[in-house]
Amino acid sequence: MSGSQFESLEKTLEKYIPPDELKDVRRILFGNDTKKFDLPESAVEAASERDFELQGCVFEAGREQLRQPRVIRVGLIQNTIVLPTEAPVIDQITALHKRVGEMVEVAAMCGVNIVCFQEAWTMPFAFCTREKAPWTEFAESAEEGPTTRFCQELAKKYNMVVVSTILERDEVHGDTLWNTAVVISNSGVVLGKTRKNHIPRVGDFNESTYYMEGNTGHRVFQTQFGKIAVNICYGRHHPLNWFMYSMNGAEIIFNPSATVGELSEPMWPIEARNAAIANHCFTCAINRVGTEHFKNEFTSADGKKAHSDFGHFYGSSYVAAPDGSRSPGLSRTRDGLLVAELDLNLNRQVSDKWSFKMTGRYDLYAQELSEAVQHDFKPNLVKE
Amino acid sequence: MSGSQFESLEKTLEKYIPPDELKDVRRILFGNDTKKFDLPESAVEAASERDFELQGCVFEAGREQLRQPRVIRVGLIQNTIVLPTEAPVIDQITALHKRVGEMVEVAAMCGVNIVCFQEAWTMPFAFCTREKAPWTEFAESAEEGPTTRFCQELAKKYNMVVVSTILERDEVHGDTLWNTAVVISNSGVVLGKTRKNHIPRVGDFNESTYYMEGNTGHRVFQTQFGKIAVNICYGRHHPLNWFMYSMNGAEIIFNPSATVGELSEPMWPIEARNAAIANHCFTCAINRVGTEHFKNEFTSADGKKAHSDFGHFYGSSYVAAPDGSRSPGLSRTRDGLLVAELDLNLNRQVSDKWSFKMTGRYDLYAQELSEAVQHDFKPNLVKE
Repeated sequence: MSGSQFESLEKTLEKYIPPDELKDVRRILFGNDTKKFDLPESAVEAASERDFELQGCVFEAGREQLRQPRVIRVGLIQNTIVLPTEAPVIDQITALHKRVGEMVEVAAMCGVNIVCFQEAWTMPFAFCTREKAPWTEFAESAEEGPTTRFCQELAKKYNMVVVSTILERDEVHGDTLWNTAVVISNSGVVLGKTRKNHIPRVGDFNESTYYMEGNTGHRVFQTQFGKIAVNICYGRHHPLNWFMYSMNGAEIIFNPSATVGELSEPMWPIEARNAAIANHCFTCAINRVGTEHFKNEFTSADGKKAHSDFGHFYGSSYVAAPDGSRSPGLSRTRDGLLVAELDLNLNRQVSDKWSFKMTGRYDLYAQELSEAVQHDFKPNLVKE
Repeated sequence: MSGSQFESLEKTLEKYIPPDELKDVRRILFGNDTKKFDLPESAVEAASERDFELQGCVFEAGREQLRQPRVIRVGLIQNTIVLPTEAPVIDQITALHKRVGEMVEVAAMCGVNIVCFQEAWTMPFAFCTREKAPWTEFAESAEEGPTTRFCQELAKKYNMVVVSTILERDEVHGDTLWNTAVVISNSGVVLGKTRKNHIPRVGDFNESTYYMEGNTGHRVFQTQFGKIAVNICYGRHHPLNWFMYSMNGAEIIFNPSATVGELSEPMWPIEARNAAIANHCFTCAINRVGTEHFKNEFTSADGKKAHSDFGHFYGSSYVAAPDGSRSPGLSRTRDGLLVAELDLNLNRQVSDKWSFKMTGRYDLYAQELSEAVQHDFKPNLVKE
């Protein structure tokens, strides 16, 4: 069984391990069991017809006296590209709009309030090729591009906040390209945009030759369904990135990503989940799925022969909660929609229990970090 | 099967899952397979006679042209207390010295260069009781106490660096108590001490009534076997704590801990491992094992009846590597010694591959964090 065919960790555990021991295995690996979300029959049927996986789960919180439960639903969408990468750019974009649009419709049937797509969802993840054409043609205006307009329609139609991470062309600032998440309010208004803060220089992720480190800091967006932030892809390896979104008040941090099995798969279940625990918030990690082929072969600076694919994007999108629990992962091989119902009251309840922020001593770190970035920084090293 | 009897996640997976699928399960859960360490027969026999688990594994690195491999061995020791908690203080300490001493002897047979014991290893974890007597009598001078002298003897005898985390009595500063790791060079000299930076206020971990937040910053100790730091227990929930040790050059960060199943077990495999990944270093998480009973009953502020035990310390000590791989965990129920051979060259190799430090944008965070700790901080919040 090869890595790209193995469908799901959770399903394999359930298949083989006897129930009494599975209970302990699941507790240690996944934390408190989440409840199953009662998916509407119509949604289950539609997902089946449209050939994508549909999963749902519920994260509950304790009842409080002074606050009502703050129950909202997020939808995480992972998908393969639809057309071959050599199809005309406009056809590829249109096909992805159509595919994701029909998945959003199912999210709406499930009562989803905030939907988030994978990183650079309107295009193949073509940065492995190091070619500029035609890939930079996928870049659009964050405020007025066709993809933002498409998402505005979805938002209005379904009364849903949409988080759409695209390649942005910034004509006002010298045609700079950015990797940008556009956050669209459920009213259909563009609430704002936030850019990828950390750009990889690893493997075939040659993104630093396409766009620059974001200059939008750590904005948090106040929506009708809670305060949300977007930590794009490689930013999930940087605990400070998650942390600073949280310091600005994020209750849910989305992590739209594109990453392949050989490089990062054992890190995937760790990083977003650690961020949920450390920052007393929910995190939603979304990875694309499938293997993308390109017309022109390219090398990967790994001593291997030229080839024409990026490796297997392993999906496995999941939601992690501040109490250390997590949802099941979506499939490693199929398109999927994960619906998670979250009671946002859980964040403050876990914070009051564990108090990581209160015990964080951030004044100490502000001081030490300010020293550490100086040219004449001397590490605090004790020698015999 | 109750939580305190379930012996080991890894063993359960191996027992039930067929080899071809186990391969993928292990890869996703644990990263690249570590190699088995070839344990000396004499050590295996001694561990068996002395009734503790002995495991070993090897983390390899690639060969370089200009640097020799930097292969060293760490030993992680987890143990139950030896005598009942109502035994005379001096007898409890002496019995723990003897028990851990015989485990260190086996570590020496395995060629261990740096050994680390669990948090507050000379005493029961009595902070659940909220009583001061007799527990504060376990506090000792970090420089001249009997436990430090004992560890100096071990260090000289076995040419081994010893990391000994104790309750420290600081007579010079108003009889302040601290939770302190003493680092003893393989020469037998006390290299220095480093104190617990973050003190819990959670569950039965009433430690903030016994000792204060450490004032030794983020020291790193240059030993003959690499640069090491000690992040004590609750500090593992704080990504900034790991990070600042790493910024000061730590190649291995030890995390001597004491934590119980109901509270933290799903977080345990996540946090130290995330820290190894995020900081391009090795981390060693050590938890005590067993259930400790106390003479006087106490309540736990959880609405439940008074009781006399702290819950089950679940052991499960492990080593995590910067490439996302990890060792098997020691048992959840038995005393154990985990020997891990590390090629420290792996740290820089992974750093050169992934470049999290280089892409870290720490000047940005120094600025944002300095602002966030001001009284008049206004979160960066975007509203419609």
